[in-house]
Amino acid sequence: MSPNNQPEPNPSFARSMELFERARRVIPGGIYGHANPSLVGPGNSPYYATKASGCRYWDADGNEFIDYMCGYGPIVLGYQNREVEEAAEKQRHDGDCLNHPGPVMVDLAERLVSLVDFADWCVFGKNGSDMTTWALQVARQHTQRKKILMAEGAYHGIDPWCVPGHGGIIEEDRAHIHTFKWNDPQSLLDLAQIHADDIAAIITTPYHHPAFADSELPNNDFLAAIKDVRERHGCLWILDDIRAGFRLHLGGSHCYFGFTPDLACYSKAIANGYPLAACVGSENLKISSTKVFLTGSFWNGTVAMAAALKTIEILERDDGISRMEEMGTRLRNGLSQSAERHGLSITCSGPPAIPFLTFSNESNFFRSQHFSTECIKRGAFIHPHHNWFLSTAHTEADIDQTIAIADTAFESVKTRFED
Amino acid sequence: MSPNNQPEPNPSFARSMELFERARRVIPGGIYGHANPSLVGPGNSPYYATKASGCRYWDADGNEFIDYMCGYGPIVLGYQNREVEEAAEKQRHDGDCLNHPGPVMVDLAERLVSLVDFADWCVFGKNGSDMTTWALQVARQHTQRKKILMAEGAYHGIDPWCVPGHGGIIEEDRAHIHTFKWNDPQSLLDLAQIHADDIAAIITTPYHHPAFADSELPNNDFLAAIKDVRERHGCLWILDDIRAGFRLHLGGSHCYFGFTPDLACYSKAIANGYPLAACVGSENLKISSTKVFLTGSFWNGTVAMAAALKTIEILERDDGISRMEEMGTRLRNGLSQSAERHGLSITCSGPPAIPFLTFSNESNFFRSQHFSTECIKRGAFIHPHHNWFLSTAHTEADIDQTIAIADTAFESVKTRFED
Repeated sequence: MSPNNQPEPNPSFARSMELFERARRVIPGGIYGHANPSLVGPGNSPYYATKASGCRYWDADGNEFIDYMCGYGPIVLGYQNREVEEAAEKQRHDGDCLNHPGPVMVDLAERLVSLVDFADWCVFGKNGSDMTTWALQVARQHTQRKKILMAEGAYHGIDPWCVPGHGGIIEEDRAHIHTFKWNDPQSLLDLAQIHADDIAAIITTPYHHPAFADSELPNNDFLAAIKDVRERHGCLWILDDIRAGFRLHLGGSHCYFGFTPDLACYSKAIANGYPLAACVGSENLKISSTKVFLTGSFWNGTVAMAAALKTIEILERDDGISRMEEMGTRLRNGLSQSAERHGLSITCSGPPAIPFLTFSNESNFFRSQHFSTECIKRGAFIHPHHNWFLSTAHTEADIDQTIAIADTAFESVKTRFED
Repeated sequence: MSPNNQPEPNPSFARSMELFERARRVIPGGIYGHANPSLVGPGNSPYYATKASGCRYWDADGNEFIDYMCGYGPIVLGYQNREVEEAAEKQRHDGDCLNHPGPVMVDLAERLVSLVDFADWCVFGKNGSDMTTWALQVARQHTQRKKILMAEGAYHGIDPWCVPGHGGIIEEDRAHIHTFKWNDPQSLLDLAQIHADDIAAIITTPYHHPAFADSELPNNDFLAAIKDVRERHGCLWILDDIRAGFRLHLGGSHCYFGFTPDLACYSKAIANGYPLAACVGSENLKISSTKVFLTGSFWNGTVAMAAALKTIEILERDDGISRMEEMGTRLRNGLSQSAERHGLSITCSGPPAIPFLTFSNESNFFRSQHFSTECIKRGAFIHPHHNWFLSTAHTEADIDQTIAIADTAFESVKTRFED
C-alpha cells in the first residue's frame, strides 16, 4: 500500500513565503493566532490559502490539500456548500448590516431554542469569546458572586480572563478564575470547597481538547462532580460548545455526553464559515441576561444568520452528524491499522468527528511534526498540535486517500525515528 | 415649505410588532444592544429591516426611510454598493473562512499602513471591542504598567473594563480604569498626577460622542494636556477611531483634529458593512504587540478584507470624505434654518459627516423623541439619542427631502411643546 516506488513529492511553498515576507513587515509576526505557521511546520507547510471547495483547498502556490482543519472548525458542510451560499446570497441581496435586526434573527432564535433541549432563549455575537465572556457576566449577575471555576489548559477564548499566555494581562484579570484538573473529580470538589458560596459558575467544554495534548472525553465521576458542585453551591454550569458544537449532536454536545448545562455557547460550525456566535440559556436566567449589556457593530448582520438556518437544516436533513462520525471512524481505524502495521504506537483521541493523533509516549512532538509535514507534502493537511475536524463533504475516497498518504508518512516516521 | 395641507402620515409598524412579540419569547428583551427600539420610539418606529439600497431602507412593514444611521456606522458608501459587493463576491467565490489567511490580508495591511501616517503595522479582528481590549493589553505589556485613563461617558466597547452598565461586572474589572472629563485639561492632569508612573495608556475617541448628549470636538488645551501626560509619564495614547474612522479623514480621524496617537482602532465603516476591525500601531510597539495573543475563528476571513480594500479605494477615488462633509453641512444648515424659522433653539453638534441634533436646554429629551418620531413617520430615520451618520450615497435631493420632513417635525414640536 505504501507508494515507495513513487518519486518523493516536493511541493513548493515559495509564493507563501513571499507573501509571509511582505506580511512580516506590516503585521506583527506575519501571521498571528491559530493560523500561526510556526505551529504547523515553518517553511514546510502552506501559509496562505487562495481557494477551497468541498473538503479540499489550494494554497498560494497552487498545492491541493484534502483538508482536516475545516478553517479550524467552521466548515462543517465543506467549503462553498451550494445551498448555504445560495441562502446567504438571497439574504445578502436584501441587506446584511442594517439599522435593525432582520426577521431571520427571530427565525434563528426560535430554531436554536427548539433544537437545544434546555434552551429557552438565545442571543448572538460574532466571536466565540463574545459569548463565553458574556455568559460569565450573566452568571455573575444572576448569582451575585465572583468565582469562576474552569479546567486547567482549557481554551475559552481571547478575553483577558482566559486568553492563553500572559502578555498584557494583569493579576486582576484572573483574580477570581480558578482551575481544577479535567476528569479529576476530587480536584474540582476540593476547589469548590475552598470557594464554596462565592462560586458564580463552572465553565467547561463538553470534552477536553487542549492544544499539544490528547483530547479527553469526560468520565462519569467527573460529570457527577460538576453536577454535585452545581447543586451543592447553587452555581451555574456554562458549556463552551464553540469548538465541538454542530459536529457531535445537533442538539448540542451535552446531549452526546449526557448532561445538561445552564448556558451554552456556540460559534465556529454554526453557519458553515459565516461569522456568528450564539449563547442559549434556561428560562430562570432570562431576566438576569437582560441586565448584562451586549452589542456589536455587525451583530445583527442577517447573512450569517440565514447561513446558520440553512446549515442546521442541511445537517438535520442529511444526518450530517452520523456522516461525520462514520467518516471519522473510518479515518481513525485506517490510521490505527496503518500505524500498527509499521510498529508505531499512536493515540487517536477525541470523538471521531473531531479526531486527533499523537505518538504515544512522545514528549517532544518530533514525530508529530514529521508526520504532519509528510502528510502535508503529500496533500493531506493535518495539524501536529491541534485537533482536526471532519466535514460532511469528506467522502470514503477522500478518507482512503488520506489513509494511504498517512501510511507513507508513518513509514517515514518509522525510518527516521525508530529504525 | 411645510406640507401642512398634506394628510398626517400614519405608517403601520404592525409587522415589526408581530416579529417583536415572537422575539421577546426567545430573545431576552426581544432586541438588545444598540438596536434596542425602546431607545428610539417604542411602537412608533421600525423594529425590523428587510431591505436596503443606497441611503434608503425598508422595514418589515414596507415603510421606506431615508437613513441617517447607516447601520449605526458601517455603511459609508450606501447599502449594496455595487463595486464593494462585486469585490466581495469575487473573493467569496474563491473562499472566505480558510485554514490560512488569504493574500488579501497582506494587501490590506500594506494599504492601511500606507494610509495611516503613524502606522507601521496592523492586525485584524471582527468587533471594535476586539481591538480596543487588545490595544489596552499591548499598552500594558509594553509599559509593564496597569492604569488606563479614559474619558467619562466614552464608549469603547462591551468588554468588562468598559461596557456601559454594571450587570455582571465585578470591581476587579475596572480596578485600574480611571476617568477624566472630556475637554477638561485640568481633570486629566490631576488624574495623571495621582497615577503618575503606573499609567499604561490614555484611551480616547477622536472627539467625544456619548449617547444622550451633544458631541464635543476636542479643544486645543485638552489635546495639549494629553500630549503632555504622554510625554511626562511615558504612557501610550490609544485612539478609538471605531465610530468616526473613514468618515472624517481617510488617513484616520487624528489627521482631522491634528494629533498623533501610538495605536488606533478601526471597525464600523472600514468595509461598508462587512464585519471587520483593525488596530494599527507604531514600530516601537511591534515587538510588544507580538506578545499579546489574539485570534478568532473568523478573523482571517478574506471577504471582509476584500470589501475593505474596495471601500477605501472608492472613498479615495471619489473623495467620499469631502462628499459626506458637504452633504452633512447642507443638512446641518437646513436643520438650523428650519428650527430658527420655527423659533426653536437647537444644537447641531459633531462633525458634519457624523451629525447630531438636540433641543437646547432640554433635560428630559421629550422634544428629541417627538422630533425623531415625527421624522420617522414621514420617512427620515434619525435617532433621538445617538449621533447620526452620513454616507456618500446621500444626494442633495435626499438631504433636501429630509430638511422638508424635519421642517414639519419642528413645526409639530413647536405646536406641542411651546405654543
